[in-house]
Amino acid sequence: MVTTHGDIFTPVFMPVGTAGSVKALSPDDLIATKAQIILGNTYHLYLRPGMDIIRQAGGLHRFINWENPMLTDSGGYQVFSLGELNKIGADRVTFHSHLDGSLHTLSPEISIQIQRDLGADICMAFDECTPWPATREEVVESLKRTHAWEAGSLKAFRRGDDAYGYQQHLFGIVQGSTYPDLRLQSVEAIAAMEFDGFAIGGLSVGEPKSAMFEMTDLVAELLPENQPRYLMGVGKPEDLVEAVSLGVDMFDCVLPTRNARHGILFTWDGPLHVKAGRHKADFQPVSDECGCYTCQNFSRAYLRHLFNANEVLVLRLASLHNIHFYHDLMATMRQAILEGNFAGWKRQFLSRYTASPAEVNP
Amino acid sequence: MVTTHGDIFTPVFMPVGTAGSVKALSPDDLIATKAQIILGNTYHLYLRPGMDIIRQAGGLHRFINWENPMLTDSGGYQVFSLGELNKIGADRVTFHSHLDGSLHTLSPEISIQIQRDLGADICMAFDECTPWPATREEVVESLKRTHAWEAGSLKAFRRGDDAYGYQQHLFGIVQGSTYPDLRLQSVEAIAAMEFDGFAIGGLSVGEPKSAMFEMTDLVAELLPENQPRYLMGVGKPEDLVEAVSLGVDMFDCVLPTRNARHGILFTWDGPLHVKAGRHKADFQPVSDECGCYTCQNFSRAYLRHLFNANEVLVLRLASLHNIHFYHDLMATMRQAILEGNFAGWKRQFLSRYTASPAEVNP
Repeated sequence: MVTTHGDIFTPVFMPVGTAGSVKALSPDDLIATKAQIILGNTYHLYLRPGMDIIRQAGGLHRFINWENPMLTDSGGYQVFSLGELNKIGADRVTFHSHLDGSLHTLSPEISIQIQRDLGADICMAFDECTPWPATREEVVESLKRTHAWEAGSLKAFRRGDDAYGYQQHLFGIVQGSTYPDLRLQSVEAIAAMEFDGFAIGGLSVGEPKSAMFEMTDLVAELLPENQPRYLMGVGKPEDLVEAVSLGVDMFDCVLPTRNARHGILFTWDGPLHVKAGRHKADFQPVSDECGCYTCQNFSRAYLRHLFNANEVLVLRLASLHNIHFYHDLMATMRQAILEGNFAGWKRQFLSRYTASPAEVNP
Repeated sequence: MVTTHGDIFTPVFMPVGTAGSVKALSPDDLIATKAQIILGNTYHLYLRPGMDIIRQAGGLHRFINWENPMLTDSGGYQVFSLGELNKIGADRVTFHSHLDGSLHTLSPEISIQIQRDLGADICMAFDECTPWPATREEVVESLKRTHAWEAGSLKAFRRGDDAYGYQQHLFGIVQGSTYPDLRLQSVEAIAAMEFDGFAIGGLSVGEPKSAMFEMTDLVAELLPENQPRYLMGVGKPEDLVEAVSLGVDMFDCVLPTRNARHGILFTWDGPLHVKAGRHKADFQPVSDECGCYTCQNFSRAYLRHLFNANEVLVLRLASLHNIHFYHDLMATMRQAILEGNFAGWKRQFLSRYTASPAEVNP
């Protein structure tokens, strides 16, 4: 993918910088982990520091000193999951801030304006992330609203100008919960609109993993082949591998940073629980196959000690490692694809990697 | 000062790495701020991770991956301030750990053995940091104990071997509270022992600042001219400047890192309260005279936002800046001394620097 702030090689994982910071990591840290693009959350940034500050700073890139590509979500997901909903209208949502209870409105037009002002290289259409489970009737209703909102987002986006002189892009989002026919209906409606790329939304929200992959497979099959496909909110390393095999190009998830803060560190053998007593005098690095700053300089015993002593340094060292591992994983998949050997590589990966039930879910 | 892990240019400030980490900073961060030597706390490290782990790691340098000089305190200060005292005997102290209540013993011999095993380039004699205020009788009593303990520390140190093949050093500590004649008595007793350097202890513990400088002046005057003088637990930038003018060579204090975590950032004009509302849309760096990573890349508005949003990244960015400022301050003093212009430089510094009552004390 080509953006003004740089080219992006896919499949790609996007670390999540919720409130203008990928938790515990600096821009230099992100570059060192080979991050190509990061994600910002419209809902959080709109509420704090607020768009007035971001506009005065010259956009989010400048405010947080990130010179590479950036994607923002539409704010819709957090409005529904964090905010206290006031009213869902046909063309707008009013909600109370989870920070101070103040009343706010989000609509396709407002979401797009905010994302323009954030300066996102890739903006997302304003949609409703249908909760799971939902009845067929609820999903039909939600889809109608989502399709209208996305059409409104596209219209507002095309009508507006790039905020800071560089080109911005807009992705549409396919919804439809776990109903195959409704997913088909959604992909048909959304793929017909002139978006720059397409996301698969409404998954990784509690449904069985088999349903997640079934829907991903169904939708990815029907999305335009020459435009990027983004599976939102996914996921664990083994999920990324499976989704790439289904044709997904882009991912985001708080899992690597959140797990890091809980002492769960990823390796090619599976997650390692570095706080466990068995690592007390374990002077190996987290992974001797990893080139990250943490693995090159510190032992499991030291990381365990830092967790025990509540030393904040470990949040950075652990996050650095996990984000580095995720980017290593994506780079390895890109290489296997280029070599025409993805299926073989995937078998090898899965035969070695042991998932752990104790991982912290996103 | 010359140590196996590197030469140290004085006057020098030593960041405090309490539990094997200078809070929020990695070894690379410390190098970037031009740290020459860091301090480790014997009491904390002895209790957690414990000497078994540190010995297996090959010493504290290796455990925390710090390749430059390191000083450890004797543990005495924390035993008296953090531990729950069980019994002070003539030759040992028993105390309960503040972590789990377990019972431990510290003596000159044990403290020296721990510091040997930590692998400190500079160890400190085991002493009693007299609380302030204390009656003359209490100080006389405490001094008697301290002088015996220090003699015992020196004996144990000379009897033992360097733990990891490189040379370790031992400093003595002058006590005597704020009684000039007892300070004189202490400096006479301690300076007569064959220590590699001398510390002024028992200050910055609540006494008036005038008394602190009076005692420092008195003691520094009488310490051997060709050995380093270390004023323990000091302090604010203006205190360092004053103490250097009295002949002090070494300092340690948690103030720059602790203040950083509270949003109080040092500049040549005085401390800046970056969380204050007036910095909401303040896109200047903390200091445009500062070459640290934080000032080169981020605005006051962004740091303020990170504090507001409880983003852990800001603890590192703020600590980086404050430690960098402290090392800049020391480097500037070294330069002024070399140029034979310290008094003039000091006048200039003080005429510009405005201390703030809102600073967090160590």
